[in-house]
Formats: sequence, structure tokens, C-alpha cells
Amino acid sequence: MTEWQRYLDDRQDTFLDELIDFVRIPSISSLSEHLPDVERAAEWVAARMRQSGIDNVEILPTGGHPVVYGEHLHAPGRPTLLIYGHFDVQPVDPLELWEHPPFEPHLEEGRLYGRGATDDKGNMLIPLLAVEALLETAGELPLNLKFLFEGQEEIGSPQLPDFIEAQRERLSCDLVVSADGMQWDTDQPAIWVGLKGLCSLQVEVKGADQDLHSGSYGGMVQNPIHALTTILASMRDPGGRILVEGFYDAVVNLSNEERQQIAKIPFDEAEEAARLGVPTLVAEAGYTPREHSWARPTLEVNGIWGGFQGEGTKTVLPSEAGAKITCRLVVDQDPTEIAEAVRRHVELHTPAGVRVSVTQRPDSAWPYLIPWDHPGNRAAHTVLREVYGREPFYVRTGGSIPFCALMLEKLGVYTVNFAFGLGDEQLHAPNEFYRLASFARGQGAYVRLLQRLGETGLEGL
Amino acid sequence: MTEWQRYLDDRQDTFLDELIDFVRIPSISSLSEHLPDVERAAEWVAARMRQSGIDNVEILPTGGHPVVYGEHLHAPGRPTLLIYGHFDVQPVDPLELWEHPPFEPHLEEGRLYGRGATDDKGNMLIPLLAVEALLETAGELPLNLKFLFEGQEEIGSPQLPDFIEAQRERLSCDLVVSADGMQWDTDQPAIWVGLKGLCSLQVEVKGADQDLHSGSYGGMVQNPIHALTTILASMRDPGGRILVEGFYDAVVNLSNEERQQIAKIPFDEAEEAARLGVPTLVAEAGYTPREHSWARPTLEVNGIWGGFQGEGTKTVLPSEAGAKITCRLVVDQDPTEIAEAVRRHVELHTPAGVRVSVTQRPDSAWPYLIPWDHPGNRAAHTVLREVYGREPFYVRTGGSIPFCALMLEKLGVYTVNFAFGLGDEQLHAPNEFYRLASFARGQGAYVRLLQRLGETGLEGL
Repeated sequence: MTEWQRYLDDRQDTFLDELIDFVRIPSISSLSEHLPDVERAAEWVAARMRQSGIDNVEILPTGGHPVVYGEHLHAPGRPTLLIYGHFDVQPVDPLELWEHPPFEPHLEEGRLYGRGATDDKGNMLIPLLAVEALLETAGELPLNLKFLFEGQEEIGSPQLPDFIEAQRERLSCDLVVSADGMQWDTDQPAIWVGLKGLCSLQVEVKGADQDLHSGSYGGMVQNPIHALTTILASMRDPGGRILVEGFYDAVVNLSNEERQQIAKIPFDEAEEAARLGVPTLVAEAGYTPREHSWARPTLEVNGIWGGFQGEGTKTVLPSEAGAKITCRLVVDQDPTEIAEAVRRHVELHTPAGVRVSVTQRPDSAWPYLIPWDHPGNRAAHTVLREVYGREPFYVRTGGSIPFCALMLEKLGVYTVNFAFGLGDEQLHAPNEFYRLASFARGQGAYVRLLQRLGETGLEGL
Repeated sequence: MTEWQRYLDDRQDTFLDELIDFVRIPSISSLSEHLPDVERAAEWVAARMRQSGIDNVEILPTGGHPVVYGEHLHAPGRPTLLIYGHFDVQPVDPLELWEHPPFEPHLEEGRLYGRGATDDKGNMLIPLLAVEALLETAGELPLNLKFLFEGQEEIGSPQLPDFIEAQRERLSCDLVVSADGMQWDTDQPAIWVGLKGLCSLQVEVKGADQDLHSGSYGGMVQNPIHALTTILASMRDPGGRILVEGFYDAVVNLSNEERQQIAKIPFDEAEEAARLGVPTLVAEAGYTPREHSWARPTLEVNGIWGGFQGEGTKTVLPSEAGAKITCRLVVDQDPTEIAEAVRRHVELHTPAGVRVSVTQRPDSAWPYLIPWDHPGNRAAHTVLREVYGREPFYVRTGGSIPFCALMLEKLGVYTVNFAFGLGDEQLHAPNEFYRLASFARGQGAYVRLLQRLGETGLEGL
């Protein structure tokens, strides 16, 4: 057994205690009352980085939730990696569905339950432990490292574009490794080659100045809920193809090779439908459900409201209604252009008698695609095959990590996703958890990745 | 001045104090926590009836909110009228829009503010005061009277059909006079000849067992909000014509004579749009906004909900969504058949991947139409012309009073609407009020109506 492996093995109990401390901090970035908790999480991260032996650790202001930066640059001639993760978490509602309080971490059958356990606190702690093991046992690192941990990923990283622009020099590197992400399942590794972009919108429909009696005014005053349902229904066909004019203009269609790569990954549609509790999966005509969710753009209404929602009947013709929408985008869709296209579509499809506004929310992201055989992916492939004993899948996700596209756009560097959560760990949902086996396995995998990239460099970059 | 007029004039302050007492009771029939208040209002009404000299006053159980009954049957050979009203009121939300607490009646510039002031407490108190004035001054009534005041009008009178069926003998009469309704404006009387029926539905759409990440599952799991908007949008065209198969099958179309009668009533569409704050009024193709709201059926979504409604963004693909619908019906649409038609329509228009349920709520009503020259209307016409010095309009409303159609169906008697609220008195809305001038004028008008019907009888009935 290597020294670094023994070092890690000996300290799993301590590391778990540390993770529990970290998960205990309710660093919900979307709720202003948790602002001090996000700050507290940043301080926790900074302290843990210093403990690992990382230099020049700083909490950097962004105008919103802060970034924690650190570096270890003592390997001249070797590549420089920037390791990414985030210490903010999703809200916890509906709270009543949690079996244990979300910020009182609970251990059961090799799983740690708590908000943020897998997304992203467990995952982002891993590289810090790997670095500590290498520094404590070898006294040095095989390459140069920078670290950027952010506190605003769950709200779409609104201040990050300006921050990266302003900190171009400090953040310059050869490759980003993201500790935010997942593997395929407990014994199947995966390399993520595609992430979707994000465009977030709110549509508000305004009718009469106040709620009206639906009997007295129905038939002569436009109902804002009807106007809204007409607008929203006009945006999609039943399979989910988007009917907004211009929506697909910039889309790079899937190649046959890409479709074959996706088809290689096992997927039982009936089993998945049963697991989710739906009568059937759906998909855009001409695509499989997996192709659609992984590699075709979507437009989803995340919430809708208007009029009387209580028990019983209230015969009201409401004065307003609204909906929240997020579009998930694929290369080369521009979030701002998509917002404009939706705005034009809404104008064209608004019935007479109401006023409508479309607002783009600040959380937006460009889509991201990395060549499957990028040198960073090749290194990850080698390490994952060693650790799991199996060939990794090349996969995509409909999720978005704005940072990946930002670093490509602003600094010209790709991001390799290298993280050890799993898709069933209730991300963004009640009873989120993290597998302790993944936590330990990830630490070893990170040591190997750093070593591999230190040895071989990034040939071809 | 007649003795009864002097009697009424002398007592306006006392009557107003009584109305204030009555409005103070928060008899909201739709909220179970106000059940004792509805009972208390029934007792208040019963006591006030006895005080007026009405015989055999009883609070009768219905299985739901009670009915208060009383009678005065001492005019053999003369017709028997049944006077109708209700002592329950609408909920008060949104409470923050009330300028004074809804159950602390407030007097200002000749108006009494409070929930129920015009709908229907002020109006239903009037005939009790008229009867008292006649009994106290003349010692007798010019005809036979029965009274039925209910406590469930605002929830659609769910127990009233069975109650009327069971009490056919007790309720038998020659004509119903409804003290629930209104006049045209402060100096223009009106006779209501048409009320709409009501069919109340709830549509619920169920997708996955729990909320999902909109990135991971968008594109392969049907979004219940999209399914719901598709279903609802498919029900109406932009002008409000209903696209539900069979919806118009039983509709008796407007005759040219009826359209001419409606066109006689002044209506400035631009002024009405400006007053309501909408860019324009709307209407079913081929009809004016007034024809549509008065005499054509409608389908209105009263409320819609689903997914995340809070501040900011939550990238959720929700597990369910729902909407409340009320259809307003015209002769001869059957509420149950309409509910079935909507149910079939929803089944036909539900996209794959979700489960949908349509529930008919118990509050339903048949549409109601009385011949404009019915003897009861002719008597009302004479009295209103005397009291206002102007010819009454013959008008309709999109509102529903289930009792009118029920009495026609069960007992074969028509209802004359004879009440003194006005349409601008914030019925069902914050800051409901009643004009004291209407309160006093209505008392005299009721005395005259009873006298007129006592003298002339109901020739032609």
C-alpha cells in the first residue's frame, strides 16, 4: 500500500467528522437570511484549505456570495490545474419530507444524509484531502494547483463572469478539474462531456386592476390565467419540441457518432418510467428520451400561479398570473438570444385584453461541450479505469454548471468533470445524501489524477 | 305621507344599528372555522323575523348550513309570496386590501362598509323592515308571505336542492321574490330576467412521484404544468368561445328580440375597459362583450398552481399542478352534462406522460330565465317606476343564484329579483359597502310591491 493511501485510510473517521461539520452550515445561497451562513461556509473552506497546506488562501469578494481561492505553485515546468467546487447549497423545502433535519447530518448504512452532502460539500472536500495526503507523505505535489470554490453555484453564479474577467491572471491555468459532478453508479465510472446552458425567465400577465367576479365579468374581460396558459401551451408540442421561433437556429445537431455514443449507455425506458412513477417517458419527435434530456434543448415551466389556490371555490376572475421558466440550452445557443426569442414569441402569442412582461433572471449559463478524447479526459479515463476496474462511459447531462462554459469562454481552458456523487443521491430534493464509500474512493482517485497529469502533462493541449 | 312611510322614516337610525350588528357577524360559509358564526347569523335572522311579527319562525337543518323559515299567512284568497335572501358571506382575503376591518362595520359618506353589507345582509334585512312597518301601522299584510333565508348561497347552496325537495309543501307559493340582487345604478332601476347557471370543476395533473431536477429530467419526463396549460388552452379560443366538444349543444341561442333588448342598455366599452384597467374588452366572435357576459356561456379558470412560486429560481420539474374552473351556463345547459363534457375534453387533450383527474365540486346551479313580461315582473316594473321615476331596464347577469332555478324546477314558480344593491359595491371584493340611501328606498319599495301584488294578484299566472 502506498503511503498516501495509508494516510487517507487512517483518517477516514476524522474526514467524516469534518464533512459533518461542513454540512451542518446551512449555506443556502438563494435565501438572503442565510447570507451569514454562506460567509461562514467560506471561512470553513478557507481554514480547511490552509490545513491541507495550500498557500495564499483568500476569501475574495465578488459583489455577491464570495469565492475562496488558494494555490500551490511549486512544480515549475509542470502543468497548472484549477480545481473547482462550490460550498453553497439548495433550499430545503418541502421541509416536511425530510426524515431528519437537513442541517443535522445523519449517518445510516454508509450514507451521510443532509442538504449539500453530495452537492457539493462531500465532493469538493475530496481534493483538499487528496492534496493533504500527498503533501504530508511526499512533501510536494506533482503539478501546480489553483483552487476556486464559489458560494453562488445554486443561484446560477451571477457574479462569476465579472469575477473571472477581473481575475484572469490569477485564475490562468492549463485545465480546470471540477469537483462538482458525479459518476454513473457505484461500480460504473463516467466522464461527462456535455452540460447544458441555462436561460431563466419569468412571465407575468396582468389583466384588470383587481380581481373581478367571474360571473359578472367573465366573457368580456380577458382572464390572465387563460392568456398565460395560451402563451405557455404555444411554446411546446406534446413531445417537448419547442415552438418558439428561432429557438433551434444556433443548435448544433447531434452527429450520428454522438447518437451512437449515447446509445451505448444502457437505459431501460420502462424501468425508468416505473421508478419515477410516470405512465411513460416522453421525447421530442425523432429523438430518444435520453437524447432529448442529454443533448437537445428544453423549455420547462418550473412554477405557475394565479387566482385562488385555496380549498373550495372562489368565483374570481383574477387580475394577474405568472410563471417561471428555465430553458436548458445546447451548443451554440446563446442564453440572451434565447431570452429575446421567447420574449418575441410571447408578444406574438398574447391574446387581446391583457398586458404581459417577460423578465430574464440573472442566472444564466452557456452550454458546454468538451471533446471526449481531450487530454484531460484521457487522464481521467485512465484513473477511473484503474479505480473502478471498468471502462468509463462518456455521458452528458441536462444540468448546468456555468463555471465550465465561463472558463472556456474567458480563459480558453476546458473543464474535466471529476467528482464522485451519484444521480440517486437526492440532489436538490429532500433527504439528500452522500455515500461514504464514494467519499473515500474519490480521495484516492484524486491523488491518482494529480499524479497522472503531473507525469504525463497535457499532451496535445 | 303614509303611516308606513312615517314609521320607516322614524326608525332609520335603529335599522342602521341593526344592520351594523348583523354585518358584524363573520358568517363566512366557505370556511369551517366560521361555522358557529353562520349559526349565530341564523339566530340573529330568526330573532329579527319574530320582532317583525312573522309567525312560526324556525331554524331548519339542511345537513349543511341552516335555513331560517317563517311565514305570515293571514290573507285568504290573496297570493302567497316567498321572500328569499341569504345571511352567509364571502371570505375576506386579501385582507390587507381592506381599509377597515371587514367585520367592524364603518360608516362614511352615506355608505356602510363591511363584508356582506350589500351581499346580502343589507338587502335581505329590507323586506323584514317593510313587513314590520305594515304590521305595525296597518295591523295586517295585503297578501300571504313565506320567508326562506339560507346560509350557504356563497358556496353554491349544496344542500338546498334536497331541502327544497323535502320541504315542498311548506315552501309552496305563487311567486318567489329574491332580496338578493341589485338595481342598475343610483337612479336607474332594473329588472333581472336572466341568471347564469354554474358548474364548478377542479383539474389536477400528476406527473412523477416527486419534484425532479429540471435539467436532469427535462425532455424525458412530461411536465405537469405544461400538460395543464395545454389542456386549459385547448378549452377556449382567444375571444372566449369554448372549444369543449358538446359545450354549446343545449344552448338556446339569443333571439334578435333579445339582442335588441340588450342593445338598448347603454354601455360604453372603452369607458368600461378604462375603469377596469384593461387594454380592451374581449368577446366571443359574433357577440358583443355584454351579450357574451350576460347571455352566452363562459368557462373561467379561477385559480392555477404548480411548482415553485417563491422568489428567485428553483430549477424544478414539478410533480403536480392543478386548476379551478367555473363554467357559467345559459338555458338549457345542464351543469352535470357540462362537467362530463369537460371531463371528456380533458381526457382527449391530455398529453402522454401524466395522469389527470377532473372533479366536479358540489356547488352547481342551473341557468335561469324569466319572461320579461311575467306578472311578477310587471308588478316590480310598476313599483320601480313609481319609486325611481324612470322606466326600469330589463337586464341579465353572468352571476348565479341557484335558488331561482331550483324553485322553478322543484315547485314550478318563477322568482322576481327585487333588491337594492348596486354593482359597484365591491361584492366578493375588499371594501364591500352598501348605500344607506338604497337601504331606505328599498324598504319603501318592498311595502309598495307587497301592496301592489296584494291588490292586483298575479293575473296570468
